[in-house]
Amino acid sequence: MAEQRKATHQQTRALNEGLVLRTLYDHAPISRADVARRTGLTRTTVSDVVADFIADGLAREIGRGPSSGGKAPILVDVVGDARLVIGLDLGEQQFVGALVNLRGEVRHVVAAPVIGRDGADRLATLQRLVDDLRELGRERVLGIGVGTPGLVDTERGTIRWAVNLEWQDLPLAAVLRERTNLPTYVANDARAVALGEYLFQRSDAGGNLVAIKVGLGIGAGIILDGEPFAGDGLGAGEIGHTTVAESGAPCRCGRYGCLETVASSRAILRAATAAALERPSSSLGRRLAHEGGLTIADIEASVRDGDDAARSVVADAARPLGEAIAGIIGVLNIHRVVLLGSVTELGEAWLSVVRAEATRRAFPLLAEDTEIEIGHQNDNVVVLGAVALLLTRELGLAPKR
Amino acid sequence: MAEQRKATHQQTRALNEGLVLRTLYDHAPISRADVARRTGLTRTTVSDVVADFIADGLAREIGRGPSSGGKAPILVDVVGDARLVIGLDLGEQQFVGALVNLRGEVRHVVAAPVIGRDGADRLATLQRLVDDLRELGRERVLGIGVGTPGLVDTERGTIRWAVNLEWQDLPLAAVLRERTNLPTYVANDARAVALGEYLFQRSDAGGNLVAIKVGLGIGAGIILDGEPFAGDGLGAGEIGHTTVAESGAPCRCGRYGCLETVASSRAILRAATAAALERPSSSLGRRLAHEGGLTIADIEASVRDGDDAARSVVADAARPLGEAIAGIIGVLNIHRVVLLGSVTELGEAWLSVVRAEATRRAFPLLAEDTEIEIGHQNDNVVVLGAVALLLTRELGLAPKR
Repeated sequence: MAEQRKATHQQTRALNEGLVLRTLYDHAPISRADVARRTGLTRTTVSDVVADFIADGLAREIGRGPSSGGKAPILVDVVGDARLVIGLDLGEQQFVGALVNLRGEVRHVVAAPVIGRDGADRLATLQRLVDDLRELGRERVLGIGVGTPGLVDTERGTIRWAVNLEWQDLPLAAVLRERTNLPTYVANDARAVALGEYLFQRSDAGGNLVAIKVGLGIGAGIILDGEPFAGDGLGAGEIGHTTVAESGAPCRCGRYGCLETVASSRAILRAATAAALERPSSSLGRRLAHEGGLTIADIEASVRDGDDAARSVVADAARPLGEAIAGIIGVLNIHRVVLLGSVTELGEAWLSVVRAEATRRAFPLLAEDTEIEIGHQNDNVVVLGAVALLLTRELGLAPKR
Repeated sequence: MAEQRKATHQQTRALNEGLVLRTLYDHAPISRADVARRTGLTRTTVSDVVADFIADGLAREIGRGPSSGGKAPILVDVVGDARLVIGLDLGEQQFVGALVNLRGEVRHVVAAPVIGRDGADRLATLQRLVDDLRELGRERVLGIGVGTPGLVDTERGTIRWAVNLEWQDLPLAAVLRERTNLPTYVANDARAVALGEYLFQRSDAGGNLVAIKVGLGIGAGIILDGEPFAGDGLGAGEIGHTTVAESGAPCRCGRYGCLETVASSRAILRAATAAALERPSSSLGRRLAHEGGLTIADIEASVRDGDDAARSVVADAARPLGEAIAGIIGVLNIHRVVLLGSVTELGEAWLSVVRAEATRRAFPLLAEDTEIEIGHQNDNVVVLGAVALLLTRELGLAPKR
């Protein structure tokens, strides 16, 4: 019984710490009194917790705020770099690892190519990345978050199937935890991206969010009531291989006309290259000749140059994505849809067509309240998502409702 | 403090009652000892609760079960008719009301046509239906559940917008509660249908379910972790007005090519009538000539007669629904999809095409574990869903996880 009371006391303490940290995180610099007001905890409890945070280097006092009559209160701020998280993005072409602080600021990035490697080789590469980052961050490292394509069982930390990485039933969290002795969490990349967008981009849009990662692959991460939704088979949001084009092009999944065959970065670059070769004197054609290959940024620049072929490549890729989003709006009626990933570099020309097509095809009553935006973090979305995963699980930084 | 303890005690009591009732409901006839085992409650608590149920006429002893060594245990069963629920289906052509017992068995049905009536007239009709059913059920009536098309705020009991009923911002639950002094709950019809299917059709498929009502309108009810999901704007599952056909037929929503223009009962009957007029000597043609109009059952019969035109009408309606389901599978990866409503009377010929198209267009990894079935309750799906709503809210009959 004494044991149980003790456990309960420790749990309460941990809950209170999470609550205070979350409040500092959202509202710092903030006075202890305001923390107490916002959390409903007593001032004594808040002062105790804050004292511990300051002792641990997690928080610090930064002087006095404006007085509201009496003595001006001392403001407390989070020390962002007090703790670092190792975030990993297991892309199919390269693995990217980073040290990220508690504010989601990237402090150090390393990358390793993995094209053509087999599953065992890829795992060895991942372990080296983790070792390097661990070495750099030392005792400030709080834990590891991993975003990976495929079907991921986040609860068990297991990758059920990641076809592009040649991993099947890999208990990745356990493998990394054993190696580093650090808390480790693994999630599907699109789901991680959604969580990152949800945690780091403050929004008052409520607890639901659809984040769609549009890059080499296309996947949606669905946040329901603050938590990533995985579905019954861990595959919720795997919209990239839904057929959208009758008699469409072959997909690497072995079928035809999947969304990825028309809307992914690979599909866009292929279409743009074909258009450039057809019209060597166009803006796209000149860029191809000059650089020997095209990037998403080249296509965007050519659209700005007024290149009709580039504009049409962009629109052809945007329309089927808009159609997929119309479907998502009808099914979920979630008001906030955020687009992330390399294809979003196409910018306004692309976004406006995605929006128009989604609006045209969705029930107007639902579409009118839905905001479709390009997300803010474009370089390291999966890394930040993986970090968000660790922070929500380990620090009680439950995303806001 | 004493007040608070008392409230807590009452809450515990209510929770325990719900738990015991749910267990009786799922496993009766069952012994008190087995209820205790399944609920984790003490035998004394279970006996107390069961004694109250028996005193209230909610449960009864039905003799002894098989002995497992010692004295054969007394089995307890639920008295289905001890309580009745008024379930209401506010269809756009008629309002149907019913008295339904705790097992979901319909005891009495009344209906009133509402075609051509205005909003005030429809509300008066509804109130008369409720009065009649109240009169019939008397003190056994536990409460009222309402399933209605449109955007419904179940928490507030308000119909935000039901265009076909000409109701806007109608606090229907409050109106009926005031009139009857009975607990009243209102939900979107498709969401109610999903809850009914979830509660009354036992299944071990876990906490998630997609139920699609395919009738005059088409809407999906999505159950996530045992609860209907409404989305940010109360419109989750409103898939009937998502565009599926480029340059499609005009829809009553004012747009073109919505799913309802090709897959609803109205669309199917229109297409079948056209086919019948074109080929008067076909099975469809003869049925039309003989009966002066076609029903869904006629079309199904003509398919069984081997009428190619009927088969093609059915397939043309099934394919876009399959496409919509493929989209839902990609977004939610929920393994159980149940089809309900009048169109399901088309049976196997329709279902097989829906399944084939959904499977063809969905990511195989997700589709292979998804079961698409026709639901069991076909006549009164909305009524039963409305009853399920009341039961889950009022009796703690939380659907099984």
